[in-house]
Amino acid sequence: MHRIDCLQYCNWSEKIFRQMREGGVDAVHVTIAYHEMFRETVTNIEQWNRWFETFPDLIFQGRTGDDVRRARREGRTAIFFGFQNPSPIEDDIGLVEICHMLGARFMQLTYNNQSLLATGCYEAEDTGITRMGRAVIAEMNRVGLVVDMSHSAERSTLDAIEVSSRPIAITHANPSFWHPARRNKSDDVLKALAESGGMLGFSLYPHHLKDGSQCTLESFCEMIARTAEMMGVNHIGIGSDLCQDQPDSVVEWMRVGRWTKDIDYGEGSAANAGFPPMPSWFEDNRHFDAIAAGLRQQGFSDTDVAGIMGENWLSFYDASFGPSA
Amino acid sequence: MHRIDCLQYCNWSEKIFRQMREGGVDAVHVTIAYHEMFRETVTNIEQWNRWFETFPDLIFQGRTGDDVRRARREGRTAIFFGFQNPSPIEDDIGLVEICHMLGARFMQLTYNNQSLLATGCYEAEDTGITRMGRAVIAEMNRVGLVVDMSHSAERSTLDAIEVSSRPIAITHANPSFWHPARRNKSDDVLKALAESGGMLGFSLYPHHLKDGSQCTLESFCEMIARTAEMMGVNHIGIGSDLCQDQPDSVVEWMRVGRWTKDIDYGEGSAANAGFPPMPSWFEDNRHFDAIAAGLRQQGFSDTDVAGIMGENWLSFYDASFGPSA
Repeated sequence: MHRIDCLQYCNWSEKIFRQMREGGVDAVHVTIAYHEMFRETVTNIEQWNRWFETFPDLIFQGRTGDDVRRARREGRTAIFFGFQNPSPIEDDIGLVEICHMLGARFMQLTYNNQSLLATGCYEAEDTGITRMGRAVIAEMNRVGLVVDMSHSAERSTLDAIEVSSRPIAITHANPSFWHPARRNKSDDVLKALAESGGMLGFSLYPHHLKDGSQCTLESFCEMIARTAEMMGVNHIGIGSDLCQDQPDSVVEWMRVGRWTKDIDYGEGSAANAGFPPMPSWFEDNRHFDAIAAGLRQQGFSDTDVAGIMGENWLSFYDASFGPSA
Repeated sequence: MHRIDCLQYCNWSEKIFRQMREGGVDAVHVTIAYHEMFRETVTNIEQWNRWFETFPDLIFQGRTGDDVRRARREGRTAIFFGFQNPSPIEDDIGLVEICHMLGARFMQLTYNNQSLLATGCYEAEDTGITRMGRAVIAEMNRVGLVVDMSHSAERSTLDAIEVSSRPIAITHANPSFWHPARRNKSDDVLKALAESGGMLGFSLYPHHLKDGSQCTLESFCEMIARTAEMMGVNHIGIGSDLCQDQPDSVVEWMRVGRWTKDIDYGEGSAANAGFPPMPSWFEDNRHFDAIAAGLRQQGFSDTDVAGIMGENWLSFYDASFGPSA
């Protein structure tokens, strides 16, 4: 059975790559761009190439579902690239395929703010998918770059599900019925996502959790059980949003980028501006077993636990990363 | 038997792609950058992606020797990308692998002028491979991007043959013993190239031909026979340098780029500034049969003709385009 985490943005190091191996994590979708333009994104890929060259026994670049199977066979972790914002494609639809050639497999249409493509979850008005957004979704569908709406607003997300000819993903968010954070998703979105064949990755980032850093494993797994009832057990997985070892300057960059001269606290606050501490039962890649155990405690079968811990994402990867049929 | 042309820079069109098919050309190494920086080169790749999308029954992007075999099987032409200048990697060694990920398979270290890496054939002084040149050659060797010295100066070319741990190519030039153009290559270079396992592609660009546009097929094939005696019949192929349908403004761009405000006529002259007319027996991709027939007239065996027309390049592609062992 394969274990996949469909969102991390750590301060990468040999230590973390070794923890992926200790935790039996076969594949990780890593964020390589928040606000970066194309050339800056390429520089980030260059950095990943150096890590692939330096630690070939631990990690390699993943491009297809079969690379997850290869990772498991070879005792390594396949690293899949993704963007949290469409900034890497700038205003150039041709960059969609270029980024896919470089290995990008997920792209969020927005990161909190209005983008050229759609509306983010912190905007006052949500105008849905833009003209360029429709063109870019069609191109993403053609080449096999997955639409990710984790940070998008409600109407834009529902639009994207409808406009996209292939299933989309919300790689890292939780249901708002459990914790009504602005980033979490409504029942309407979750149902439409599941009906269209899409995937939700459950986030472990404390601002997305009921009771934040104090959230219990039991509460988290209970929420997964309720979501499984709503969406079906094949449309859910993990997207931990693990930001291990990052300095607080990075969460400020994630929130503020270059779009404002003011401070924006996003899901935090002036009193709680930095990265919140992770729950004690999920601090790094070595702790996925705890989640699997918590799911079994909720009454999930071994097959369903395996699905949530990676097999569902693997089926989605198989169907999503190649050119459209 | 596979037919490969290891250098063209045409004004691409459906007409030319159809002529490739009529001529039974299984693979073409196409120039996608003369003086372009990285982002401009990416725009050129975007244009190729549009052609691949528009004419999937005629062409597709080649990345490995097996793609040449696939092209032959499927009745299409595999298009391999190359640069005539190292400008696409700017001053950033990480761009070597990025360009390889995007499909680049050949990169000239210089185009006539001094570059960051080596000296071009029109410089007064040839200082050989630079510090960055040595680092970049090692990186090209690692990822499988072939060093091409077609427009480089003598010492730089001999240096590159020695410094490179993998065989290099001169994709489009002729021996200077036949026609002493500045761009053609000395016996020393040709012998060192062959001894190191490298490849020479014979050019049909009139400035590289004895008697220019009036060069006869017999003279061209006789020259190939003499070169085969010097280099061995397995180290030679075709790199036609076909620039079909290009306006004369393009040859000015090739020569002048942005590096001078003056006019530089390169291999031409003020009186003959544009593209010279091709020899009557090789005007486009449909005329490779004439060369094959000319080679047989020189007494080459069928196997040797097949080698020169493509099999030698195919063996070189097989050995050169993947990561180093």
